[in-house]
Amino acid sequence: MKTRTKIDLYDTTLRDGAQSPGISFTTEDKLRIIAALDGFGVSYIEAGNPGSNPKDIELFEKAAILNLKNSKLCAFCSTCHAGTNAYKDESLLKTVNAKTDIVTIFGKSWLLHVEKIIKTTAEENLRIIFDSIKFLRDNDKTVFFDAEHFFDGYCDNPEYAVKVLETAKDAGASVLILCDTNGGKMPDEIGRIVHDVGAGFSRPQEKINANHGRDVLFGQHQKRDILFGQHQGREDPAPTGKPMSDIKIGIHCHDDNGLAVAGTLAAVKNGAVQVQGTINGLGERCGNTNLCVVLPNLQLKLNYDCVPEENLKNLTSFARYIAEISNIAFDENTPYIGGHAFTHKAGMHIDAVNKLPSSFEHISPELIGNVRNTLVSEIAGRAALMNKMRRHMPNITKDSQELKDALNLIKSYENNGYQFENAEGSLSLLLLKSINQRKIFFSVETFKLVLSEPGVNSHKPSASVKVKVDGIDEITAAEGNGPVDALDKALKKALATFYPKLKDMKLIDYKVRVLNSNAATAAKVRVLIESSDSDNHVWRTIGVSTDIIEASWNALLDSVEYKLSLDEGLTGV
Amino acid sequence: MKTRTKIDLYDTTLRDGAQSPGISFTTEDKLRIIAALDGFGVSYIEAGNPGSNPKDIELFEKAAILNLKNSKLCAFCSTCHAGTNAYKDESLLKTVNAKTDIVTIFGKSWLLHVEKIIKTTAEENLRIIFDSIKFLRDNDKTVFFDAEHFFDGYCDNPEYAVKVLETAKDAGASVLILCDTNGGKMPDEIGRIVHDVGAGFSRPQEKINANHGRDVLFGQHQKRDILFGQHQGREDPAPTGKPMSDIKIGIHCHDDNGLAVAGTLAAVKNGAVQVQGTINGLGERCGNTNLCVVLPNLQLKLNYDCVPEENLKNLTSFARYIAEISNIAFDENTPYIGGHAFTHKAGMHIDAVNKLPSSFEHISPELIGNVRNTLVSEIAGRAALMNKMRRHMPNITKDSQELKDALNLIKSYENNGYQFENAEGSLSLLLLKSINQRKIFFSVETFKLVLSEPGVNSHKPSASVKVKVDGIDEITAAEGNGPVDALDKALKKALATFYPKLKDMKLIDYKVRVLNSNAATAAKVRVLIESSDSDNHVWRTIGVSTDIIEASWNALLDSVEYKLSLDEGLTGV
Repeated sequence: MKTRTKIDLYDTTLRDGAQSPGISFTTEDKLRIIAALDGFGVSYIEAGNPGSNPKDIELFEKAAILNLKNSKLCAFCSTCHAGTNAYKDESLLKTVNAKTDIVTIFGKSWLLHVEKIIKTTAEENLRIIFDSIKFLRDNDKTVFFDAEHFFDGYCDNPEYAVKVLETAKDAGASVLILCDTNGGKMPDEIGRIVHDVGAGFSRPQEKINANHGRDVLFGQHQKRDILFGQHQGREDPAPTGKPMSDIKIGIHCHDDNGLAVAGTLAAVKNGAVQVQGTINGLGERCGNTNLCVVLPNLQLKLNYDCVPEENLKNLTSFARYIAEISNIAFDENTPYIGGHAFTHKAGMHIDAVNKLPSSFEHISPELIGNVRNTLVSEIAGRAALMNKMRRHMPNITKDSQELKDALNLIKSYENNGYQFENAEGSLSLLLLKSINQRKIFFSVETFKLVLSEPGVNSHKPSASVKVKVDGIDEITAAEGNGPVDALDKALKKALATFYPKLKDMKLIDYKVRVLNSNAATAAKVRVLIESSDSDNHVWRTIGVSTDIIEASWNALLDSVEYKLSLDEGLTGV
Repeated sequence: MKTRTKIDLYDTTLRDGAQSPGISFTTEDKLRIIAALDGFGVSYIEAGNPGSNPKDIELFEKAAILNLKNSKLCAFCSTCHAGTNAYKDESLLKTVNAKTDIVTIFGKSWLLHVEKIIKTTAEENLRIIFDSIKFLRDNDKTVFFDAEHFFDGYCDNPEYAVKVLETAKDAGASVLILCDTNGGKMPDEIGRIVHDVGAGFSRPQEKINANHGRDVLFGQHQKRDILFGQHQGREDPAPTGKPMSDIKIGIHCHDDNGLAVAGTLAAVKNGAVQVQGTINGLGERCGNTNLCVVLPNLQLKLNYDCVPEENLKNLTSFARYIAEISNIAFDENTPYIGGHAFTHKAGMHIDAVNKLPSSFEHISPELIGNVRNTLVSEIAGRAALMNKMRRHMPNITKDSQELKDALNLIKSYENNGYQFENAEGSLSLLLLKSINQRKIFFSVETFKLVLSEPGVNSHKPSASVKVKVDGIDEITAAEGNGPVDALDKALKKALATFYPKLKDMKLIDYKVRVLNSNAATAAKVRVLIESSDSDNHVWRTIGVSTDIIEASWNALLDSVEYKLSLDEGLTGV
């Protein structure tokens, strides 16, 4: 078997992915995503744009102390403006000061954009690309160059598009990334152009433009000579400049035609060695190339080397974890990692799969951490669960009855919409319960919550809660900024009479996910709560119900019980 | 310009699509889908399997009187069993009696399945395929032959796979459909095999199997000689039988590797003239080829002729209509037809699109009935807003006072945590307000919500709501599965007295996002609600508050007001 070619995964979830409608990451979200990407083993993480977003400067400072093991951070920026000097450009100066060794800079490679959008000359565009990269190189940055709209530019004017690449290379860029920014190119077109660029020649226009001109795609309004570019046509492949075989080529696709993964694979087969994309395909419009789909295609199907082999098994849980932080509903139809990807419905298929899985599965789901026909949960995997339980039962084995009982208990919760991947606090309590070591610290006797005429300040939601500890009742009430806040305050106020340390406990995050959107407000909701105490312990708990108040309440009860269990050494974070 | 090649779209939403997890069509649903498919102009509709499902016999009877104009109905069936006679096969007899001119019959073309799943000999498999097709032909049916697992079979044993095709052709089949049943093949592999089949030769195994053998994809357990098929290898392409250039070839892909659309396009480029798939990519596991994505690629990008040109403009509404009947949440990220497909968020993109749409769009959204949407977000600004206001004020300019007022109003909402990029319904109401065109349809006098001891069924949340319309009070109450559900029901019940059309209004999605996580349950939450009416309008509204009930309530109020404004022509979706 020949040596496997290394392909670098370059993740831009935090930059291009943040352009998805509805996505908005906090700095805390971003740091958790960076840590997860590093743990999973992507080569590069494009974390933000310090030149245009002051919060990203802070992000790079905080990220610098994460001590990443597998990934390198990249700052993203634009070239300086036409008619200005790179060394005076405020954004470039901020980028240089951000704590990253690598800067990814984008520039125009399509004359249409040069002339109609940034409104400058072809020569000046080359000048600002050269000067901006040179400035970054002079400041000891490794530079990746994103050639924006490269494929559209190349089809319009191959000489100019290639000249842009040569300029970036001459200025000191290490990788040239060819971008299908509008996401409309066909995979075979992308493959052919990546090949041609590597070889140093261009093809005649007629072939590049396939059968259809851009005038068809945009109606009759636009000038054919600009958009169709036939005046650039030549008969045969002809040299356009130096071959690009001595510099690394990257690929960056968007999914506007549903072909981002195919286009990316075509580029890799033709020599690209850096693959840009996002986790779960987040991104502007229809999204970027989904790294979670392209990765198993590259590594399992086409035998490239992208991440350490053992990490592939974490792909499914990793993708779900990022979806959770992104607060998006995970698409269960996603190839490879979706909950439906190995779910068989037709009776004939199920029969056949029972005889021989490969009869209706293109790969073994275990290879990427997915499962056949049952609820997806990393934690429900026997081995992972055994590790968790070993804390309480050092001699537990694969065949222990306790392990089976715990698995069954977790499965029954999962069938009701619970998911413990991001709620290890609730999971710990459930494990304690399954081995009869859960301690009853308190019981709730009654609670009542009243809301009226919201928006009027004097009518804040109020909650009354009655708890019992060691036979002693305590009833109290509290107002809050919202119903969950009122319940949280009343519960802790009542319990603090018995457990004063609860006063130090803080809720630091609260997330809600609707499980079955079609049922709208009658759908089940999943609430995740993150809590901390004065010893800097952090834990997460979960509640599920059709009633958002009930779901929140259950997550609140778990968070308090976990804190009390922790203080008694029953569990550890 | 050369003549456009006709490609027949073959829809299997009602058969293969019905295998999607969560999908279950009634006969009424199926008839509505058949009528819609016909109206849209697909060539063939695979409507059911009369041999295995008695309800499908009734369906074909009812469908026969629909007088379809563009589409032909196909019944789906299997070959007779090994060791039995076709003319005695009950399923085939039922199929023959169903009211369709065309029957699509599937048979095994992968020896693995012949030997391990249906457990018969290679010869007997050929015999049942021949006899079954012959029987259908003798009963005057036009026969399409689905060669199940053709690509896996061909990679395993090209001679046998091609012999299956020859057998079907000799028995009288009109179209041979090559199926990637497990959805795992690479597009270039599919293209090459379709080409080879048409030309009548096969390639050596080593090339067909690319770099990786099936043993890698399924662990080490399986016999390499069966699954890898190296014993079949030959050095060069060699004839395996008659060229298939004199019979129509079709393609049927599944999306398990995210490459179904790419594989389908590769097949068409290599000679396939029938394309099988489903609307919205429904189907077993990750789904079938999405016809709504493959169609614009074929017709707009590659200049094939699939449906009447004018029907393409109905693609977006057609796909949404089928999603509605299927009772699935429409995936807004879908290429071409999704709500995000032409939605621009980055300010630089919006600027450029206003100058020249093709700068960040691969086609004009109008071509497939979609619309451009610029998200109003902190990063976007003035240009996006002006696009929105032009509906009400055709002569608005960058310097209009109205634009400045609207911007200030939006900014003040955004400062309070509102985000309008995914809530164009609330934005429209705000814009109406800023130009004094908002109409007061109703006012809420009081409401009260009581929750207690959640989890006890008899203690469902209850809401009472009192509204006033034109001076007339109406008070009513409702219980719900949760507090928001209770409020939603009570509000609509009270208002429907005055506005009966509100009864048709549905809440289809409900999303919650916590804005400032550090404040936990006292943090602000942002609620997004998606609603629809019986005319298939869809709109989204937003509410923000520290109180999740209040945030939900505000989004609910907006959703109702938007519907009322829409019905009066004050705004458009």
